[in-house]
Amino acid sequence: MATVKIWTDEDVVTNPRVSAVFDDIRATRGTDFVNNVWRALANQPDVLEATWAQVKAVMAQPGALDPLVREMLYMAVSIANGCEYCVHSHTASARAKGMTEAMYSDLLAVVGLASQTNALVTALQVPVDSEFEV
Amino acid sequence: MATVKIWTDEDVVTNPRVSAVFDDIRATRGTDFVNNVWRALANQPDVLEATWAQVKAVMAQPGALDPLVREMLYMAVSIANGCEYCVHSHTASARAKGMTEAMYSDLLAVVGLASQTNALVTALQVPVDSEFEV
Amino acid sequence: MATVKIWTDEDVVTNPRVSAVFDDIRATRGTDFVNNVWRALANQPDVLEATWAQVKAVMAQPGALDPLVREMLYMAVSIANGCEYCVHSHTASARAKGMTEAMYSDLLAVVGLASQTNALVTALQVPVDSEFEV
Amino acid sequence: MATVKIWTDEDVVTNPRVSAVFDDIRATRGTDFVNNVWRALANQPDVLEATWAQVKAVMAQPGALDPLVREMLYMAVSIANGCEYCVHSHTASARAKGMTEAMYSDLLAVVGLASQTNALVTALQVPVDSEFEV
Amino acid sequence: MATVKIWTDEDVVTNPRVSAVFDDIRATRGTDFVNNVWRALANQPDVLEATWAQVKAVMAQPGALDPLVREMLYMAVSIANGCEYCVHSHTASARAKGMTEAMYSDLLAVVGLASQTNALVTALQVPVDSEFEV
Amino acid sequence: MATVKIWTDEDVVTNPRVSAVFDDIRATRGTDFVNNVWRALANQPDVLEATWAQVKAVMAQPGALDPLVREMLYMAVSIANGCEYCVHSHTASARAKGMTEAMYSDLLAVVGLASQTNALVTALQVPVDSEFEV
Repeated sequence: MATVKIWTDEDVVTNPRVSAVFDDIRATRGTDFVNNVWRALANQPDVLEATWAQVKAVMAQPGALDPLVREMLYMAVSIANGCEYCVHSHTASARAKGMTEAMYSDLLAVVGLASQTNALVTALQVPVDSEFEV
Repeated sequence: MATVKIWTDEDVVTNPRVSAVFDDIRATRGTDFVNNVWRALANQPDVLEATWAQVKAVMAQPGALDPLVREMLYMAVSIANGCEYCVHSHTASARAKGMTEAMYSDLLAVVGLASQTNALVTALQVPVDSEFEV
Repeated sequence: MATVKIWTDEDVVTNPRVSAVFDDIRATRGTDFVNNVWRALANQPDVLEATWAQVKAVMAQPGALDPLVREMLYMAVSIANGCEYCVHSHTASARAKGMTEAMYSDLLAVVGLASQTNALVTALQVPVDSEFEV
Repeated sequence: MATVKIWTDEDVVTNPRVSAVFDDIRATRGTDFVNNVWRALANQPDVLEATWAQVKAVMAQPGALDPLVREMLYMAVSIANGCEYCVHSHTASARAKGMTEAMYSDLLAVVGLASQTNALVTALQVPVDSEFEV
Repeated sequence: MATVKIWTDEDVVTNPRVSAVFDDIRATRGTDFVNNVWRALANQPDVLEATWAQVKAVMAQPGALDPLVREMLYMAVSIANGCEYCVHSHTASARAKGMTEAMYSDLLAVVGLASQTNALVTALQVPVDSEFEV
Repeated sequence: MATVKIWTDEDVVTNPRVSAVFDDIRATRGTDFVNNVWRALANQPDVLEATWAQVKAVMAQPGALDPLVREMLYMAVSIANGCEYCVHSHTASARAKGMTEAMYSDLLAVVGLASQTNALVTALQVPVDSEFEV
């Protein structure tokens, strides 16, 4: 259960600021489906607007990394942070953007390995090599 | 400072198991430079061998994701985990494998955004949408 | 589901040490409701007593910060640590102590921003300014 | 050491976008001192602009929570995330905004307690009380 | 709900690589019960084989630490990482290997204390004593 | 560098509450050496007294787990939390209490493996088996 109300479409239309964001999410993504994170953020229109603006800028615009790579980086961070909802939503997005089972398998292997070596390096407190200096 | 001794090349040659791993690291990577994490792990040959075998299997073999994407996923996890050495070593590796400034900028934007939305989602305890079910 | 038994009021009365803590929780808070964390800790009376003593000392006594600010700091840590139960219980407590929707909105904005900049700073390994030295 | 170049004032004046942000930081804060996080972000003007815009919106504008409380929430998140630079910079900011030793003592007690109970609750997997439902 | 299919025994027999791992899990542990983590990993046979090989090497072979201590270390890491499934499975394993209520109580006290002092030390940015140098 | 003053022995004798704690630390541990965490906490006598009381109760008294196992659990949590000072101080303590190189090797292997499987389980969002219910 959430710590806040999850807004239905009926709730959304009662608030012009929230409605405007939901309209833009639907137009940008080309689908009527709006997932729960936006329905939860609707309680705080300032945070909703700022968050959607940033997601749109970072995830929905052309850039140096292709959209699938950006989505997989999002997944990797969400897994490392242990965020259940985020893992679900970004795994679904990555699949929708073309992540194959073989790519997913590679991602799992890298994320698992990185988590393991991060722990070993922290345990040993390995000093940074001077070769890595900028 | 490390919690263990950092092995010099002189130390390495005194131990056949450690020597064998260092030789394979050098051969696999095509460089004489062996970074400190391996010199720290040398104190525990079992862990050294197992870790190098896994790094080699996951990072140095062909797969569904190209080596630069795998390196950037490694960076993302290391940043999320707050591992100083890992951030340094994998940022250096990603640059060596072709990460441009524009790609780095995109990666920073995604990792920052993911960290922010992960926190918001956790604060709101957003329920997983049934649409994300497998 | 919990990894331990959740004690009902019937269980509590069978154990004098647990009963004494539950009586003090009810008296201190002025309510009969005792939430599940105490019912789970009841399995380990040593840990229950020590934890309640510390919560009472830190949260229920007058101090330099007002109770609502302390509760919001508790929320911030719980969000950053990704603790589902803690987020729920301390969001409820903060509301009970007077957190308005506008204050909650500010808290979400700060926690989200801090999570994002923490990640960026870690990615860039920014050196501490000498101006921040004590 | 950083993973990127730390821009000096001489570097900053060579780039109009970076210069504009630095000018605004100085004007907003009323001081010539610009701390290292901005000098590190200067390598990525997109990320620099977006991050400063967000920090300014969240931290430098009037809101429901007073600036010192916002700064202490920032500290709490930074401590929980283990971000060395962030702990230093936001502890310094909180002191500059009026955090007394007694308030700092309270903050440390709450952050320490929250970290402890977060761990206990996670160990016991305490189910959320229905009383906490929205 | 999982982000992947949870394999039933009927699914397992259709895939020789998965079947071989499941047979070895059952033989090594001396029980027919195979818990969900393996049924989830079955979708990625490479990751399944590598993970089981490592678990078997680290947890099921004789070593310097007895099996119960290794299991409790696993619990401690899982609690600190906030991994719900891992806390459940390794608490159950530790009990099966002989963890008494008194030992569990000690473990909870240490894990709680460590989480608290970790936070305090991070808040204060305590410098490492030269006496701790290797 | 610390965010607070590190108290020298000359500072300590000027404050009776701090002096009393330092005397007890020295008497309990049977050594004149007092490490930096206590010298940093000295700025906040309330937090100093409460923290030392808890450390003494949890770490220095007989219990169901032997002192070395408790110290290794402390190490495991500190590694998972990425606390540099804590990793150093508790690795040193564990060695002082008899941790051999072979035991350290086992600890590293378990902590590394747990970190890896925690990440995989989080990625896959594995549902808790009903067999693990209490």
